[in-house]
Amino acid sequence: MKFVTYNYENKENIGFVKEDKIIPIEDVFDCLGQSKPNTILELIQNYDDNFWDRIETTINSKKDFNFLLLSSVKLLAPIPYPKRNIICLGKNYVEHAKEMKLTKISDSFVPEDPIYFTKSAMPAIGHQDEIEFSYDVTQQVDYEVELAVIIGKDGINIKPEEAEDYIFGYTIVNDVSSRDLQGRHKQWFKGKSLDTFCPMGPYIVHKKELPFPVELDIRCSINGELRQSSNTKKLIFNIPYILSDLSKGFTLKAGDIICTGTPSGVGMGFEPIKVLKDGDIIECYIEKIGKLTNRVTVI
Amino acid sequence: MKFVTYNYENKENIGFVKEDKIIPIEDVFDCLGQSKPNTILELIQNYDDNFWDRIETTINSKKDFNFLLLSSVKLLAPIPYPKRNIICLGKNYVEHAKEMKLTKISDSFVPEDPIYFTKSAMPAIGHQDEIEFSYDVTQQVDYEVELAVIIGKDGINIKPEEAEDYIFGYTIVNDVSSRDLQGRHKQWFKGKSLDTFCPMGPYIVHKKELPFPVELDIRCSINGELRQSSNTKKLIFNIPYILSDLSKGFTLKAGDIICTGTPSGVGMGFEPIKVLKDGDIIECYIEKIGKLTNRVTVI
Repeated sequence: MKFVTYNYENKENIGFVKEDKIIPIEDVFDCLGQSKPNTILELIQNYDDNFWDRIETTINSKKDFNFLLLSSVKLLAPIPYPKRNIICLGKNYVEHAKEMKLTKISDSFVPEDPIYFTKSAMPAIGHQDEIEFSYDVTQQVDYEVELAVIIGKDGINIKPEEAEDYIFGYTIVNDVSSRDLQGRHKQWFKGKSLDTFCPMGPYIVHKKELPFPVELDIRCSINGELRQSSNTKKLIFNIPYILSDLSKGFTLKAGDIICTGTPSGVGMGFEPIKVLKDGDIIECYIEKIGKLTNRVTVI
Repeated sequence: MKFVTYNYENKENIGFVKEDKIIPIEDVFDCLGQSKPNTILELIQNYDDNFWDRIETTINSKKDFNFLLLSSVKLLAPIPYPKRNIICLGKNYVEHAKEMKLTKISDSFVPEDPIYFTKSAMPAIGHQDEIEFSYDVTQQVDYEVELAVIIGKDGINIKPEEAEDYIFGYTIVNDVSSRDLQGRHKQWFKGKSLDTFCPMGPYIVHKKELPFPVELDIRCSINGELRQSSNTKKLIFNIPYILSDLSKGFTLKAGDIICTGTPSGVGMGFEPIKVLKDGDIIECYIEKIGKLTNRVTVI
């Protein structure tokens, strides 16, 4: 199952993706005789794993939904307004940790413990939305393709072997980063959180679609030039470890979004560095999840 | 005007404080012929400065409200569920920056630019709630009394001279901090965000109550022993600077909470360090705002 948040005829709605079509949420919930949730967050929070089986059966058995063509809607970030900041991991691929060694942003090498920081998304922007910034604010903007884990139910002190139970699904986040602000403010929040700096989507893929642990090719291209290419099996701290470590004394909530880090090949890793500029097209791809494309506009 | 969120007879409500009493929100909104907001966030987001004058006139002119005694309710954090993480400043008093120089948490001295990080509050706990932690998770828990600014309306690229227009009011936050987790994870989010680590309140004081810039005595005591004592006029980056700098390229939203940093005297600044232990009583005081008291329980 793939979930989307979309805008069609000036109304925001959520739906299920089936090939090149969207089944609006109300169609499926009508079949189940239930009132529909209004947002993906409500959907995630109010239903459990058993329910997803019923949803899937309904989607696969019924043929005459009021389909919308994917191409006819405006896709939004699947969770445009997360309940709290997105939690991100810094330097969670070895080669990326090494390329960042050269910079002023961090003084450590391959981390011994996960580096957690947060990124505001208010809202997260969607596929084909524009990343906008002004040179008055930042001169060094960079891309970071990341596999994002969506938490499915509340949990604290989660055991690594139970991690998958707490996952709802996966999406792509481009952790757009202002390198000069990261360096200037020491802690990374501001440099990660400028308006429009959180492209997300296009879909949330339900965990049932992907064998666990997830081992997916992950890539990022700028104007068609491949810059980042790795596989999520190369995470230094894998997803069970992250959920276990992060949830020690800290309750993860259904709907929380955790970005698992970016592989090497960011602009900051080149000599000289490569910064994003007006008109650049960023394509973030993760196998079996999709492709998230955004254009850069310098305002 | 002072605003509270409280629980009375198992119902959560908001109200206005008048001496030792609370006027429930519906009483005041009934007088104005308006339907009441359900949370302080709705109250902050939906009304402007002119409206507060009407509220104040109503409160001061009418005598027969259905008052509740403050002592008869359970006070909650005034904003128990912020819309996104609380934004905090690190090392924003000179003497505190110096005392932290000795530790592994930070390698810089008095900062040249504000250090912004975030703290999750889901929920923020209230006056007289317990701060709970386990030694399995952290062995070095510390207190930090801070003046928190509540944003009153959305704004981006705010000019310093306009800062007060964007403020709703002020409250107290105890930025409870796990020093070992701050050091271990490099970025501070996790060490600042354990469950119950965000006591807030007891009140939000409306900005009209306080001359601007706010110059207030700020203190923190542990079991009656004064540890922190300063004045908010000693902030390295003052409130107009913070709102201006932080909002460059980043929209501050009505209801956002910004903690302005803590003065010297935290446990980490002593030689040897002093950590919080089971049964400790923390009293955070800011002149004209109130006193926020919490007890520590090691679980």
